[in-house]
Amino acid sequence: MTAVEEVAPATSRRGPRSDGGAGKEQILEAATAQFGEHGYQATTIRKVAEAAGVDAKLVHYYFGTKENLFSTAIAETFRSRGFPNLLAERSTAGDGSPGTRYLLAVLTALEDPGMGPAFIGLVRGLGTHEESRRIFLRFVSEELIGRLAPQLGSDHPEVRVSLAGSQLLGLVIGRYVLKVPPLAGLSIGQVASTVGPTIDRYILGDLEWNSEPGGTP
Amino acid sequence: MTAVEEVAPATSRRGPRSDGGAGKEQILEAATAQFGEHGYQATTIRKVAEAAGVDAKLVHYYFGTKENLFSTAIAETFRSRGFPNLLAERSTAGDGSPGTRYLLAVLTALEDPGMGPAFIGLVRGLGTHEESRRIFLRFVSEELIGRLAPQLGSDHPEVRVSLAGSQLLGLVIGRYVLKVPPLAGLSIGQVASTVGPTIDRYILGDLEWNSEPGGTP
Repeated sequence: MTAVEEVAPATSRRGPRSDGGAGKEQILEAATAQFGEHGYQATTIRKVAEAAGVDAKLVHYYFGTKENLFSTAIAETFRSRGFPNLLAERSTAGDGSPGTRYLLAVLTALEDPGMGPAFIGLVRGLGTHEESRRIFLRFVSEELIGRLAPQLGSDHPEVRVSLAGSQLLGLVIGRYVLKVPPLAGLSIGQVASTVGPTIDRYILGDLEWNSEPGGTP
Repeated sequence: MTAVEEVAPATSRRGPRSDGGAGKEQILEAATAQFGEHGYQATTIRKVAEAAGVDAKLVHYYFGTKENLFSTAIAETFRSRGFPNLLAERSTAGDGSPGTRYLLAVLTALEDPGMGPAFIGLVRGLGTHEESRRIFLRFVSEELIGRLAPQLGSDHPEVRVSLAGSQLLGLVIGRYVLKVPPLAGLSIGQVASTVGPTIDRYILGDLEWNSEPGGTP
């Protein structure tokens, strides 16, 4: 073992690297795999560090808490699959409407073993697990409302995104958590083609605001 | 106090009445009030019996378990408000489309202190509380799919009801459990007028089934 080999790993294990965060990406990859395989609750910072081959302190240094690491892993998966752009692309490049293409992509992601099971686990805990609720609301406000709404350029973009989100959330819970019989048995394509026009209407269509007291939001 | 007044309550407290179940209705009313005020978990058969002025054995005799009593109370509230018929009435008697009228009625019920809080509590526990999940699935399969679907007379009525149910479930969770900011702040009328057309389309509209392998369900 040379002097260089002795020193380099020790440096990278005790604090942030000077290579601009290559270790950060490695940790995030390991975290995504661990959360996907074991779910949020069973995954620990220590296990993620082991899988990434780094010291647990480095994981804490980059990501703080486990809650924050999970939020970042979900957001990263969401962005790396190009989800924020799918709904904003109004052209009918590819098959179907924007809503249909978005649902095809989201359902395909949820049914693959990557982050799908971890995300469904998160949704399962929404009503009773305060940490899950915080992670999910942060995802909705930062990634959906914050990143998606400004791209839409429609009237009331935040309301539109939250309506589309309500349909998506109910779909995920009905199909994957409760497994309601007819809904759970449809193919991804059938769900996307029947529910897609709902997403289109919320995101791009005319929403009829009634003019009752209180006005439009 | 007359002799009749002395005897009648005693009889009704020791076992099923011979009057065809008037005590049954009284218990169900008390149960609805107790579940509404204290939620599912904090309500006991004993407390319901006390509120109804009957013996706990009579509650068990008529309704079996607490789970069954709650299911029955929800179903009864649902029917007494005429919900099953609201979606099936395709005429535009009253304001708005069937979906809009249905949502107005459902959201108004959820926001009144009757069974609203108990039902929202049930939805809150869906992902983690097995008893809540059973109660909810029974409600969906018996009251929604079983009672509503046959009235529709459309193609794929069960799929239509489960799609509408997914939108409704996501709306209830987003607005009342997670309280997602823009959605939670809309008025009942605004939610009904923007989401109503989605329910209309699922229940009455043309669903585009794609012809991929697996075919239509």
